[in-house]
Amino acid sequence: MNHYVSHLEAAIDGTALPFGTLANMHNGRPIWVRYHLDKVRAAVTSDEIAKRLPSLWRYRELLPLPRDAEPVTLGEGMTPLLHCPRLGRQLGLSQLYVKDESQLPTGSFKSRGMAAAISMAKWLGVKRVALPTAGNAGGAAAAYAARAGIECFVFMPHDTPSVNQFEAQLYGAKAFRVNGLINDCGKIVKDGAERMGWFDLSTLKEPYRLEGKKTMGLELAEQFGRGLQGEPTGGSPSPAARGLQREPANGSPSPGSWQLPDVIFYPTGGGTGLVGMWKAFAELAELGWLRATPGHASGIRFPRLISCQAEGCAPIVTAYQKGERFAELFPNARTVASGLRVPVAVGDFMILDAIRASGGTAVLGRESEIARWMQRASSAEGISICPETAVCFDALERMVAAGEVKPDERVVVFNTGAAPKYLEAMPYDLPSLDKDALDWDRIAG
Amino acid sequence: MNHYVSHLEAAIDGTALPFGTLANMHNGRPIWVRYHLDKVRAAVTSDEIAKRLPSLWRYRELLPLPRDAEPVTLGEGMTPLLHCPRLGRQLGLSQLYVKDESQLPTGSFKSRGMAAAISMAKWLGVKRVALPTAGNAGGAAAAYAARAGIECFVFMPHDTPSVNQFEAQLYGAKAFRVNGLINDCGKIVKDGAERMGWFDLSTLKEPYRLEGKKTMGLELAEQFGRGLQGEPTGGSPSPAARGLQREPANGSPSPGSWQLPDVIFYPTGGGTGLVGMWKAFAELAELGWLRATPGHASGIRFPRLISCQAEGCAPIVTAYQKGERFAELFPNARTVASGLRVPVAVGDFMILDAIRASGGTAVLGRESEIARWMQRASSAEGISICPETAVCFDALERMVAAGEVKPDERVVVFNTGAAPKYLEAMPYDLPSLDKDALDWDRIAG
Repeated sequence: MNHYVSHLEAAIDGTALPFGTLANMHNGRPIWVRYHLDKVRAAVTSDEIAKRLPSLWRYRELLPLPRDAEPVTLGEGMTPLLHCPRLGRQLGLSQLYVKDESQLPTGSFKSRGMAAAISMAKWLGVKRVALPTAGNAGGAAAAYAARAGIECFVFMPHDTPSVNQFEAQLYGAKAFRVNGLINDCGKIVKDGAERMGWFDLSTLKEPYRLEGKKTMGLELAEQFGRGLQGEPTGGSPSPAARGLQREPANGSPSPGSWQLPDVIFYPTGGGTGLVGMWKAFAELAELGWLRATPGHASGIRFPRLISCQAEGCAPIVTAYQKGERFAELFPNARTVASGLRVPVAVGDFMILDAIRASGGTAVLGRESEIARWMQRASSAEGISICPETAVCFDALERMVAAGEVKPDERVVVFNTGAAPKYLEAMPYDLPSLDKDALDWDRIAG
Repeated sequence: MNHYVSHLEAAIDGTALPFGTLANMHNGRPIWVRYHLDKVRAAVTSDEIAKRLPSLWRYRELLPLPRDAEPVTLGEGMTPLLHCPRLGRQLGLSQLYVKDESQLPTGSFKSRGMAAAISMAKWLGVKRVALPTAGNAGGAAAAYAARAGIECFVFMPHDTPSVNQFEAQLYGAKAFRVNGLINDCGKIVKDGAERMGWFDLSTLKEPYRLEGKKTMGLELAEQFGRGLQGEPTGGSPSPAARGLQREPANGSPSPGSWQLPDVIFYPTGGGTGLVGMWKAFAELAELGWLRATPGHASGIRFPRLISCQAEGCAPIVTAYQKGERFAELFPNARTVASGLRVPVAVGDFMILDAIRASGGTAVLGRESEIARWMQRASSAEGISICPETAVCFDALERMVAAGEVKPDERVVVFNTGAAPKYLEAMPYDLPSLDKDALDWDRIAG
């Protein structure tokens, strides 16, 4: 068998759609990819996957690209899941982890979605793609399109961070700045798709970026299943922490060995990552690859998804608080966390459904605390924390104080990009020294 | 046994020095770490290593950190070895690979050295480190020091790229700009080490950054041993290329399975990476982990090391051409490839010895071609090519034209950092569009 996709499915009404031809939306709303999970279960075990090369393509049976098609790859995944004891102590958490997506190609989580979407586009014969971007998606699309030999058109708001403008040009995309927001750029792409024959790669307007993002959830489950880091070890580091963890021995498959954390903080712009992870957890549960939660009545307890948005652009938080399933356009969107500057999301109901099904919530982070949290979190653990993730930490601190996150819960915060992609978000100014007249007191601070 | 280090050894005269106490230089020159390779060979096989987690710490027996000490880690390594068929065709090479170090923590190869050096410094009780930097080393040191809870002082030339200034501050280092070059900054660190009790982390002035950089060579040998990518597959992608490569089965160790490429292009500032790789190859050969080269009289043919420098700062090229073992200070050093702006290297003789022993050479890249090659290489393959690596491509193109690199040789170019860390090196200017008056002809280009 060449792939495990059973069909595509309209998210808004469940209509079954065929797989293997170009697809964008159905009734103006996103499309799910559905798999023959029984056949996946028969074909591969989680232990076999754990022995494969460290790449998101290790989950090949849960990805749509047929097995005789070569992925368009820049070596993406797996990203490290880093235990953060120092930052955890500051926040009152014993098991705080950061899943560091900044180490992906082009320095952000956007590469996961683009690896999948561009691989599928190439397989389906697409020659030209286009997308609007709030920042990092443009660079990732340009890079993967270059790798695939596909022409790429990118439209970004005029005040998009300088690094995102730089990288679109670096990778040879036809990139433009637009006097508007990402939804204005999306309009140009929509018109151009009809007029110029572009394939529209917008977030959730084609089915496969979601499948790429899903691998964040697959990796998380596999990594927690290893008991990798931060489990109390009584001072003696675990074999895994010392880098000496062996993969499970051959011949002893142990279905049900992967695990999930208790809470996930995820910065939400278009929402593909959050929705993708929730889909990943459901597929893993159906495959039987997740360990049962002790004492949990229905077997497996899923993580609470905490969707974090900046106060300057928070359509999902607003809809969540109102009890709505669909979000209204957020007026006058404005935040330095450029990836969160998404005033309207076509997958709003998928995001809100996932948050509620998980028992999670949608929360605000304060604009005034973004730069401070970037530096506080980055300097506590040496991880390059982006402004979107800074928003998550601001929300996390308040939720711990309010008792909504417990001190011993396993909390994962997704760091979706590298901080230096956002030079404009954190003011910096290094003091100057005169080498011929050094002031040692000043150096000592 | 707790570690496999036999002793330290002065590079200039072979003096044996004890392991386990703080060490900087001997007679003003660098120090090697030497191992009981016979005991390493008895303790572990290359196949066992290949089953470990994807991290540079998988090579633990060939690293100095004792096994009961926990590494200071941000999840570094392994980096992808990417076959580049499109760029290869442009250059007339069928087997061109880029080893993409931009996907490491802090976006550069400097993280390898700092992971090892900061881990060792922490184990040895160091509380305060200091270093001069031409750019990326400062960010990496600041990040790993933050992760370790060690105070970090960073001194950089006043015109160091903005991203490098940003990241030093992000990670909470005490960072300063200096009206001079990296050697002027090095003088401050030297003085401060005496006056302030800092541990001097300068390139090759302590023994362990070299050991961390050595893992570039170890990974390369392991990855080529897999037959990973770009071996002719007759149109049908190999299992490895499809991400489905299984690790070797248990119980069948096959010593001598790792392989080396034919030629390595490496941008050379301080030279730790080049020297570290050469050391890695020698250790692997002694361990018996390298496959014999068919038809090669003495067993294993090592790669030719091509040391690449920018014409504006080329002390190693100058010394190589003159037949010298030591390099003179290069006057008026000036290049946008900031990592190459190292006018004098304390390990000059180690670099020149390695180049000559390998049958390689030292070559110039043109300053005028740096921005062009960044964009040309990045847009051909979607890899984020830094200015230092752009210098390598300029040299490679001329060497292929001159017949000094053959069309079917396996050529590896190291991409030592992410291009967006060098915003100043490539001018960019995206055209603006008015969303209310779109000019479709202009968009179509």
